[in-house]
Amino acid sequence: MYKKGDSETYGELKPYLDRLMALHTAQVLFGWDQQTQAPKEANPRTSAVIGILSGEYYRTVTDERLKTLKEACEKDAGLTDTEAAIVRELGDTMEKLSCIPEKEYRQFAELTARAAAVWEKAKKEKNFEAFAPTLKEILNIQKHFASCRAKNGEKLYDVMLGGYEKNFDMECLDRFFGRLREVIVPFVKKLTESGVRIDDSFLTGDFSEEKQAQIARFVAGYVGFDFQRGVLGVSAHPFTMSLHNRDVRMTTAYNNHVDDAIFSVIHEAGHAMYELHIPDELTQTLVGTGTSMGMHESQSRFLENVIGRSRAFWVPVYPKLAEVFPEQLSGVSLDDFVRAVSKVQPGPIRTQADELTYPIHILIRYELEKMLVEEDLPVWDIPEVWAGKYEEYLGVRPEDASEGALQDIHWSQGSFGYFPSYALGSAFAAQFYSHMRRTMDIDALLEKGDLSPIWEYLRENVHRYGKMKTSRQILKDATGEDFNPQYYIDYLLEKYGGLYQVSA
Amino acid sequence: MYKKGDSETYGELKPYLDRLMALHTAQVLFGWDQQTQAPKEANPRTSAVIGILSGEYYRTVTDERLKTLKEACEKDAGLTDTEAAIVRELGDTMEKLSCIPEKEYRQFAELTARAAAVWEKAKKEKNFEAFAPTLKEILNIQKHFASCRAKNGEKLYDVMLGGYEKNFDMECLDRFFGRLREVIVPFVKKLTESGVRIDDSFLTGDFSEEKQAQIARFVAGYVGFDFQRGVLGVSAHPFTMSLHNRDVRMTTAYNNHVDDAIFSVIHEAGHAMYELHIPDELTQTLVGTGTSMGMHESQSRFLENVIGRSRAFWVPVYPKLAEVFPEQLSGVSLDDFVRAVSKVQPGPIRTQADELTYPIHILIRYELEKMLVEEDLPVWDIPEVWAGKYEEYLGVRPEDASEGALQDIHWSQGSFGYFPSYALGSAFAAQFYSHMRRTMDIDALLEKGDLSPIWEYLRENVHRYGKMKTSRQILKDATGEDFNPQYYIDYLLEKYGGLYQVSA
Repeated sequence: MYKKGDSETYGELKPYLDRLMALHTAQVLFGWDQQTQAPKEANPRTSAVIGILSGEYYRTVTDERLKTLKEACEKDAGLTDTEAAIVRELGDTMEKLSCIPEKEYRQFAELTARAAAVWEKAKKEKNFEAFAPTLKEILNIQKHFASCRAKNGEKLYDVMLGGYEKNFDMECLDRFFGRLREVIVPFVKKLTESGVRIDDSFLTGDFSEEKQAQIARFVAGYVGFDFQRGVLGVSAHPFTMSLHNRDVRMTTAYNNHVDDAIFSVIHEAGHAMYELHIPDELTQTLVGTGTSMGMHESQSRFLENVIGRSRAFWVPVYPKLAEVFPEQLSGVSLDDFVRAVSKVQPGPIRTQADELTYPIHILIRYELEKMLVEEDLPVWDIPEVWAGKYEEYLGVRPEDASEGALQDIHWSQGSFGYFPSYALGSAFAAQFYSHMRRTMDIDALLEKGDLSPIWEYLRENVHRYGKMKTSRQILKDATGEDFNPQYYIDYLLEKYGGLYQVSA
Repeated sequence: MYKKGDSETYGELKPYLDRLMALHTAQVLFGWDQQTQAPKEANPRTSAVIGILSGEYYRTVTDERLKTLKEACEKDAGLTDTEAAIVRELGDTMEKLSCIPEKEYRQFAELTARAAAVWEKAKKEKNFEAFAPTLKEILNIQKHFASCRAKNGEKLYDVMLGGYEKNFDMECLDRFFGRLREVIVPFVKKLTESGVRIDDSFLTGDFSEEKQAQIARFVAGYVGFDFQRGVLGVSAHPFTMSLHNRDVRMTTAYNNHVDDAIFSVIHEAGHAMYELHIPDELTQTLVGTGTSMGMHESQSRFLENVIGRSRAFWVPVYPKLAEVFPEQLSGVSLDDFVRAVSKVQPGPIRTQADELTYPIHILIRYELEKMLVEEDLPVWDIPEVWAGKYEEYLGVRPEDASEGALQDIHWSQGSFGYFPSYALGSAFAAQFYSHMRRTMDIDALLEKGDLSPIWEYLRENVHRYGKMKTSRQILKDATGEDFNPQYYIDYLLEKYGGLYQVSA
């Protein structure tokens, strides 16, 4: 499947790379399984298995022979560009892991596998204290890992951020989130005080799971998800994962808000299309996946918000929805529906947040993570600080821990530094959108139900590179400009200023 | 989780064993996934991943250091009984694999992963020719593997049989199947010519999948399946697999015969209970699973046929079924139902066969496998020989290949020598049943819905040993007698002679 150059050294390296990918793929499948169907009591033993597989992965990456081969490949001029990129990526992975002893690496994998269940239970019981000791352990290990990886006095949180998005450190993110705090926080206050009221009551009600699943499948297929190469499952927290470019899976969840399932599917389909468009030459290699979390989120948020919440998108799709739910949507016009799904409503839950207040949820997590990692905020203080920031920025307080710091799975997986990717993703999306509009009439395309030129743009400029380019390079090469958060600010002010007839 | 003796040598061996079990568990999960939900186009790439993991398994088993440690353990008096059994089992596994080169082993794993899809397509298209070349390749490799393993002029089919059931070679099976051919084949002819007609038309009809799934879950729980430690899924061909004793999964399939799904579930639950009852000390070790295919089938067939098709079983359960399907079962009495699910009806499909004709399907496969392996019958001749034997023994001919030699997945997986286990399982079950009845009134227990003494017997005498004993030892220790197929013959003649008022 992999098109090989004629480097013998690379040929020797290849079996190690294959082993790494196979072990990685197995872990991905275990992850999918644990979140979608594994029985309750399976967790401890299955976590042990996952720990052992992680250990194998670690042993493979840190193998002395692999190191020698990698160094030989770095000096070999006979590598194809792809091979060279794979060797670079391998170097990164080796550097990340080799400073962590195998035992710790493996224990951490077991810990996070267990922690998912601890978190789930604590969330269900709305009991932050039940999760705090595990969280503290995970945070300490992550700090320790980051300190092992830090070079030349690099700050720990910068190390963590770099794990998800290269070239976006605290200095850069402080500026980005600073703009959001200065402009978007007061803008949201203005909107909520504007007196404009949007009715979205019809989105809540008795929508049968069966019919929601029917719409979910329809919408997934409509935006381009290929069921011959993918699965749509159900899980508590929607996510997407890829075994390779012929098996990309996403989940959604069904509740009494019909828009939740629909926009989750559109969001996850954005991730899924990225992975489905990875070229055959790259899939199942170290560069055969989306280049970064931020770039991944740019794809999902672009599809969900920019495309999926636009009026033009719903022109051909809304009649289908109204047909499936004739009672619930009786008397609801296309415009009523489109306004409802863009309603701004500050609330405590990130995943239920509207497009405008969403980055403020991320801002809060960014500030908290900085405090936890750089200022040693005790984990037990999280609920209070959390509530204070929600009050200050959004004017809401969580009623309990399940609405507060327990709402997200990320920290239980050790993913500190991940959250900023969500907001960066939206900012990348806005920059792509602005560029795309110079050459195509997106609304006209959507109104006739033709998403293919949009996919062509994204496949051509983003997807096909996998990890061959960083997100910063991709942005620059595609739009001709370095990362510029102003597009995002402008996009939000224009869209929501228009909807609520308010200016910033 | 594993209770360790104080042998240092064993302590050194342990990480290798853990790695083997983790790799095995990953492959089990891939198997489950491929059969229950993986998207269509995933197969080739995922098969490559599975092939690589098999290669890792192989490399671990054939590692020189492992061999040295195993030999040291064999001489170490400090091992617990369990540890010693694990080392014995490891020795068996090493012997089996070490005579096959890694490349061939791995290629075979990839081949069978691909072959499942080839078989499925050929079956769907009723085209034996489309499967024949793959089957030939698999058969040749299996013969080659068997010849590598054969000791002192052992016959190839005996080697294959030994892989599934120790101490049941062709000599033993020729006697066993000879009895079936002599007694049961003419007995079936007598029954079908007896003029006794049993109405089972009410079992076929429009039974909604949703309600069937509801009954399937109910029955699974009723017989003891624990959903906290297991999953009930859907697949084309029902099967059971175990990741470990806290995660045992089984599937069923829904069609317009309501009894198919129900008895599949009862059957698979018999397998599942065996795996759920594996003690913590043994699970996730080389001896932590059912001792053989035959013993496994004895558990599933005991539960399905001896228990599940008895009148007593249905006394408390039938009202529930009638409640879920009030229209379809209106006017059908408990006795009508019980007679219907024991109706003898020679037909072409093994998995739809009744309890009495079932072993004849196995007899045919046994004879065919012997011809393929020992007499070099060309695979292209299978359909004709197949049809001839069905005609001769059961008086039916398959209408097409999907009803003939393509009906079973087994050969596509290289499982030659597996089929006899099914009939042996029934024979083991009859021997256990006869012994059990000496100390308990099984019908009385079933009528009050109490299966626990039955599970206690099986757990105590069979399940808890895992692979610490062979099936032959288990039978002997439990019943005080070596394998004796007469119990099975007697059981069939008594039960069906009574039902059809015919004597052998």
